[in-house]
Amino acid sequence: MNKPSTNTARYDVTGIGNAIVDVLGFVDDEFLTKNNLNKGSMLLVDEARAAQLYAQMGQATECSGGSVANSLAGLASLGAKTAFIGKVKNDQLGSIFTHDLHTVGVNFTSKPAADGPSTASCLVCVTPDAQRTMATYIGACSDVSEVDIDQQQVSQAAVLYIEGYLWDTEHAKAAIRRAMKVARDAGRKVAFTLSDTFCVDRHRAEFIELIKNDIDILFANEAEAKSLYQLQNGDEAVNKLRGMCEIIAVTRSEKGSVVLTEGDVHSAPAQTVHRVIDTTGAGDLYASGFLFGLTRGWDMGSCAMLGNCCAAEIIQQVGARSLRPLKELVA
Amino acid sequence: MNKPSTNTARYDVTGIGNAIVDVLGFVDDEFLTKNNLNKGSMLLVDEARAAQLYAQMGQATECSGGSVANSLAGLASLGAKTAFIGKVKNDQLGSIFTHDLHTVGVNFTSKPAADGPSTASCLVCVTPDAQRTMATYIGACSDVSEVDIDQQQVSQAAVLYIEGYLWDTEHAKAAIRRAMKVARDAGRKVAFTLSDTFCVDRHRAEFIELIKNDIDILFANEAEAKSLYQLQNGDEAVNKLRGMCEIIAVTRSEKGSVVLTEGDVHSAPAQTVHRVIDTTGAGDLYASGFLFGLTRGWDMGSCAMLGNCCAAEIIQQVGARSLRPLKELVA
Repeated sequence: MNKPSTNTARYDVTGIGNAIVDVLGFVDDEFLTKNNLNKGSMLLVDEARAAQLYAQMGQATECSGGSVANSLAGLASLGAKTAFIGKVKNDQLGSIFTHDLHTVGVNFTSKPAADGPSTASCLVCVTPDAQRTMATYIGACSDVSEVDIDQQQVSQAAVLYIEGYLWDTEHAKAAIRRAMKVARDAGRKVAFTLSDTFCVDRHRAEFIELIKNDIDILFANEAEAKSLYQLQNGDEAVNKLRGMCEIIAVTRSEKGSVVLTEGDVHSAPAQTVHRVIDTTGAGDLYASGFLFGLTRGWDMGSCAMLGNCCAAEIIQQVGARSLRPLKELVA
Repeated sequence: MNKPSTNTARYDVTGIGNAIVDVLGFVDDEFLTKNNLNKGSMLLVDEARAAQLYAQMGQATECSGGSVANSLAGLASLGAKTAFIGKVKNDQLGSIFTHDLHTVGVNFTSKPAADGPSTASCLVCVTPDAQRTMATYIGACSDVSEVDIDQQQVSQAAVLYIEGYLWDTEHAKAAIRRAMKVARDAGRKVAFTLSDTFCVDRHRAEFIELIKNDIDILFANEAEAKSLYQLQNGDEAVNKLRGMCEIIAVTRSEKGSVVLTEGDVHSAPAQTVHRVIDTTGAGDLYASGFLFGLTRGWDMGSCAMLGNCCAAEIIQQVGARSLRPLKELVA
């Protein structure tokens, strides 16, 4: 694909996603079994279940999260111009989330909710194998709707980036459709992540339609690709994605990543990692690196390589936001 | 000194302190200079100044803090029975603070404030040398008073532990005096930490009176000892502390720690540390290890050694609460 048109673009990427603060703690495998949590995936929970899980969780650390928000924070840290659209409440967790986007330079102006549910939080349970399993109380995020779509932030961004996680309520879907239309009308590219196997499972048919008709750049991992086509074999599933849209970037953990374009396959090996601490944010930061390269007109292999580097960096830290600037990875 | 009487003691240690959530971020030295922050010390700030500093701070991580609360969490993680008395508000940061004490097994039943200032937060600025410099918005903590002293929690603990940081308002001082009287009347020991050089500077005369008349076990670092006697020389200041109370435990960073008792000096070398990440909580966790040994009747050298081990563990993590259990250090 050609470099996304940066003609009159004020932003490299504008993203829409869940505005979440992560509550991150180390647990053992028994904790997951006992609580019927599926390792590596994300479960939506109500406030009561969230409280019940939290009460059983050990000492936790709170850090800003949210898939697309993490990607934008990574993009900003790499040096890109970004904007985020999402919903927090006017509470303490909302202030933390807002601060952490503002401080890294992401434009975030969505009006916080004055009442209703509190800012979303995600219990991130990290097991000794560094895998993360998540239970999300969606809180204020569920209020995002068409009125939250800032037309200028979308039309003036080279790429619009949307997370599959957000595809849940009717008004969130309407908000996403509205944003995609604004982006299209302005001649921009639309990127989308499948987010999670269970998320794919809930919305399989709609996701396939979206990919075929509305999306230019798709992010997925192997498990999500398998879930999308209900296939057991990863290679088969990835092959099936081919040609569904212009660019398909698939992450494969320690096997690195692969990018499928019309007629081409570009592989990038995984970076060497000394000690994996916590895999939270690996996919999100892959998207940061990939989209950074893409908006600068890099070839697919280089985009994937920077994606792999950013993912490698974040899995050596606790949480999904890097405490050190990512700019130095660009070289 | 003999082992503190555990006769009818339900708790090893009950502590009174500020109930604080730390907001921890990495900054450069220029950030400190620009904002007139004294490296290594703690500054009390009002809400406006806290907001202004926070706005300049990069990506942050939130973790429970508070000096005595950190020590109690460490003690509980080592296997001791502990209780905490302190004031949060009924808000999101208050819930985080409460969860993190409960989850490690600290009894914390102080009634949260329903209105008034929000739960305290401390901006912990970590510089590349791993030193931490703190700006604390004291919030709900300032409401602690005599009514918050649970007589049973104090009289039934082998040791009452108090932080110098709390010695600020008249009603907090009254609460501390009340707790010390309850402990004394029950034949318990009173431990106290000088907390910070500026804290010592504000209350020098009162602290000297407290140490002489009301305290059995004193925790200090070399800088605080120097501040107490307004001396330039660390050895001289530490010598001057000698005999002021029954046990004086002084931490000296990479020189380890020294314990002064009547007629004896016990030194314990610092533990080998592979990579210092963040010194937040070093002194607090030293107290955890020391008091754990003391309540089990260990000799002074062994108490100091476990203190050093706990301090070494925490400076290799981000924040002042260990994400891994400390029990294995006891062996």
